[in-house]
Amino acid sequence: MAVITIVGAGMMGSSIGIPAAENGNEVRLVGTPLDSEIIRHAKATGEHLTLKRKLPESYRYYPFEQLNQALAGADLLVSGVSSFGVDWFLENVLRTLPETLPVLAVTKGMIDREDGALIPYPHYYREKLGTRHLSLNAVGGPCTSYELADRDPTYVAFCGEDIQILRRIKALFETSYYNISLSTDVIGVECAVAMKNAYALAVTLAVGMAQKRDGKLHYNSQAALFAQSVREMRRLLSLVGGGDENIVYGAGDLYVTVFGGRTRLIGTLLGEGLSFEKAMEKLSGVTLESIVIATRTARAVRRLIARGAVREEDFPLLLHVDEIINRGASVEIPWKAFETESVR
Amino acid sequence: MAVITIVGAGMMGSSIGIPAAENGNEVRLVGTPLDSEIIRHAKATGEHLTLKRKLPESYRYYPFEQLNQALAGADLLVSGVSSFGVDWFLENVLRTLPETLPVLAVTKGMIDREDGALIPYPHYYREKLGTRHLSLNAVGGPCTSYELADRDPTYVAFCGEDIQILRRIKALFETSYYNISLSTDVIGVECAVAMKNAYALAVTLAVGMAQKRDGKLHYNSQAALFAQSVREMRRLLSLVGGGDENIVYGAGDLYVTVFGGRTRLIGTLLGEGLSFEKAMEKLSGVTLESIVIATRTARAVRRLIARGAVREEDFPLLLHVDEIINRGASVEIPWKAFETESVR
Repeated sequence: MAVITIVGAGMMGSSIGIPAAENGNEVRLVGTPLDSEIIRHAKATGEHLTLKRKLPESYRYYPFEQLNQALAGADLLVSGVSSFGVDWFLENVLRTLPETLPVLAVTKGMIDREDGALIPYPHYYREKLGTRHLSLNAVGGPCTSYELADRDPTYVAFCGEDIQILRRIKALFETSYYNISLSTDVIGVECAVAMKNAYALAVTLAVGMAQKRDGKLHYNSQAALFAQSVREMRRLLSLVGGGDENIVYGAGDLYVTVFGGRTRLIGTLLGEGLSFEKAMEKLSGVTLESIVIATRTARAVRRLIARGAVREEDFPLLLHVDEIINRGASVEIPWKAFETESVR
Repeated sequence: MAVITIVGAGMMGSSIGIPAAENGNEVRLVGTPLDSEIIRHAKATGEHLTLKRKLPESYRYYPFEQLNQALAGADLLVSGVSSFGVDWFLENVLRTLPETLPVLAVTKGMIDREDGALIPYPHYYREKLGTRHLSLNAVGGPCTSYELADRDPTYVAFCGEDIQILRRIKALFETSYYNISLSTDVIGVECAVAMKNAYALAVTLAVGMAQKRDGKLHYNSQAALFAQSVREMRRLLSLVGGGDENIVYGAGDLYVTVFGGRTRLIGTLLGEGLSFEKAMEKLSGVTLESIVIATRTARAVRRLIARGAVREEDFPLLLHVDEIINRGASVEIPWKAFETESVR
């Protein structure tokens, strides 16, 4: 039995402990300062407030002030924060951790640099931590927290630099329904799953376009945008130096994101003809992680285009999504720009 | 203006002429002996019997007996037959064509050989035709006939050996809604889209599994199977010598097939726990093209495994689908077999 301390009691952070708890490990769920209500409610009722599922009875709950207590004897720290919490997590948790405690982060996304480089969070943390060397691992692949909490068969990838550490972490979480591949290609896995943000929005534009037309679901256009997404995602993967096989996680994560959550909702509204501003109003102003990551991805590509390192015509869909969300453009899919000629 | 003669008045054969007719070309639709009723009905009403859409008024209709008349002055022959009609088409149409008349086939699928090789139809035709050299081109990529007939934005690939001929054919069909990439990688494009048959069935097993569980749609499992499908499809592509970039068409075609048609229906029934026999009874005994192609693909892989050319563990999902449809196995997704370890 191991002790797993999860910091961040959002839906994914809270769900990922479920298979670990069922394996007999002690799971301690620590709320961030934003999670106080979730922790209080879970402690009182055993239920997660936003996930709306019972959490395992063996879960132990801590407010953030009791982090040290929650870390006593811990074998693994899980970061359950979203990409909005990355810097908070770095300053308030990572900086004080012992180097012997491995970290597994569910946070999906990338940071973009001035030179157009896209950096996965584990690398960003490493850089900021300087000489403090923590084992920073991450979870990628298609997984919605609801369905993990429902014990639906799920398939993800854990990535990190050290395969031995990855194997030990996997042993804590692996169950009949939670299936885990391992990869030391951190940039490949993390880039593949970060990219789905822009492209899930792109694919769901077709959902809205069809809604507006006749209120029905159509699939040729969705499939066309899915295919173009896979094409551009493969190019992005190659650009960041990730292995091409990671398109497996990218395509899987794109698939699951097209079908659930707020990214689909906003893409559909945009496809129906609403401006980005109006569409966001309908979501009552919540800033979507996917919008932020999509914007960063596009910004990075624009910088690379400016430097002559990338051709604009290789990313027509990403750039159109960026124009819609950041430049007030209306939806006009650049279909002809997707056409290629491949001569062997 | 060109003259395009389509042989095979099924739904796809009949739909693909629509963009060509709208471009001002003369489209002549020739029924096979199985299409007599469709041709009669279309001639009388202007509507396609099974597609249930009006066809362009400029379409001209011919029973198969008038093939020669329909071929007089033709610039392109389109094969609209399904994979069940491949040998009929070869013997009754291709053998008598002038070598100067290029062919474009909508038929999707592959033939498997005794040695485990998978052969796309254009190559199969070429082999059978011996010294008669026809320009044999094919259409791949995600496109349902209904939606093409509704002028939904659609994205496909035309493949063939000669890029000049492909460009000329593309010019006949290209419209604002029918978008066409070109590729001389015939085996890559054709293999990518043929493979979707087995894998669309695989992904939709998860639809049935969730239905059985609580009647709802879940996506983690579908996405997991989609990801594993992309992984195995990339391996198959490499096996047949197709370019890896064709996964774009494979993933797109997989996506569209998961959401429409009878392959989804049968996969869902199997996922709900019906035996293959019972599931097929519900489809009133219609032999599904997808089942035949899936069986061929699996048979080829089994032969390659027997020869030691392929590892069994590289195709767990394909082999499970084959066990379900051809060996009476019940659905038990081999989740653990999907797990990989990738060390860079």
